[in-house]
Amino acid sequence: MKKENRMFRIPKHIGVIPDGNRRWAKEKGLKKEDGYQFGLAPGAELVRLAKKYGVEELTFYGFTVDNCKRPREQVKSFSRACVEAVEMVKKEDVDIYVVGNTKSPCFPEELLEYTKSSNLAQENKKAMRVNFLINYGWEWDMKNGWASSTIPRIDMVIRWGGMCRLSGFLPIQTVYADFYIVKNLWPDFKEEHFQDALEWYQKQDVTLGG
Amino acid sequence: MKKENRMFRIPKHIGVIPDGNRRWAKEKGLKKEDGYQFGLAPGAELVRLAKKYGVEELTFYGFTVDNCKRPREQVKSFSRACVEAVEMVKKEDVDIYVVGNTKSPCFPEELLEYTKSSNLAQENKKAMRVNFLINYGWEWDMKNGWASSTIPRIDMVIRWGGMCRLSGFLPIQTVYADFYIVKNLWPDFKEEHFQDALEWYQKQDVTLGG
Repeated sequence: MKKENRMFRIPKHIGVIPDGNRRWAKEKGLKKEDGYQFGLAPGAELVRLAKKYGVEELTFYGFTVDNCKRPREQVKSFSRACVEAVEMVKKEDVDIYVVGNTKSPCFPEELLEYTKSSNLAQENKKAMRVNFLINYGWEWDMKNGWASSTIPRIDMVIRWGGMCRLSGFLPIQTVYADFYIVKNLWPDFKEEHFQDALEWYQKQDVTLGG
Repeated sequence: MKKENRMFRIPKHIGVIPDGNRRWAKEKGLKKEDGYQFGLAPGAELVRLAKKYGVEELTFYGFTVDNCKRPREQVKSFSRACVEAVEMVKKEDVDIYVVGNTKSPCFPEELLEYTKSSNLAQENKKAMRVNFLINYGWEWDMKNGWASSTIPRIDMVIRWGGMCRLSGFLPIQTVYADFYIVKNLWPDFKEEHFQDALEWYQKQDVTLGG
């Protein structure tokens, strides 16, 4: 069967855990907090690719309430990287939505404007929607009556950096998701990782718990 | 370094998804519903092994509210297998606890006596506790104010049958769990699967989202 003739089952909504920035920085002899900047270009590239393949929605794990307990330089660095990531992805002509605890000082005020779900009105809907979890916490999510519920069910989670775990990533949306693990660290993102994940997804049957 | 001298980090609480009974039955030329019986001995064996290694708690994914929508013979068969599994594991001198929707006709009444958390009183505590999810549903769990909250955080989930997903298994308890996937189907359980999972777990660093 020719590849171009193959019927492709494309996940509607993919969760992205871009892990390994600090390990990558360490490997390169950089300071840990310098790794995040190298995760920006991969993020934009992944959005373009997903759009090309017809994925309708992406949700990036930005940073969590717990991450903010790390050393100050790291917090400053990943927070800035997340703001830049949103600005960069915005240029791809997609809808942007940000979910997280806006009431703590860790939430970057530049991103406040993206937290209103009214921005996602049906009439001006773009071909793709990209969500970012910013100062997110699963406990915060649950305590606030499932604060992230404007983000729909996730079909597949792709995690870079080799770990096979969710680390608190949207526990409710991921109940039926298939998890695909990329061994490479996030700044070493390659188009093939995404293509391999899609190929793998073809072989998973979707039962939704049935 | 000699293996026997190595310091082992044993997960306190392991979640078990014993998947693949129907596929196994099909492979053997049996009816789908005849697979569940072959999952009983593996369950008892796993409990003995986990106890030997000092695991304090195991939680088995029995069956779900959604599973009960399957053909009647299958429902009857996995329900009976679960009752037998509980009776079998009870002989291993462990505390037994059952969580699930007891108010639907799908809940086997033989297991009602195990659903009282008062049975888990500290004074008579055994070396190990084994939980079974019986007629469980993540939506039921959430709607009832986290009905499963007497089951603590899970350190590692081991899933047999090759799928890399949670399928609605305790979304809150598994937020920080590491997932280990065994390709073999559950009735083909071997001691090595469990040992490999423990070896793999040594290499995972526990950050609890930090």
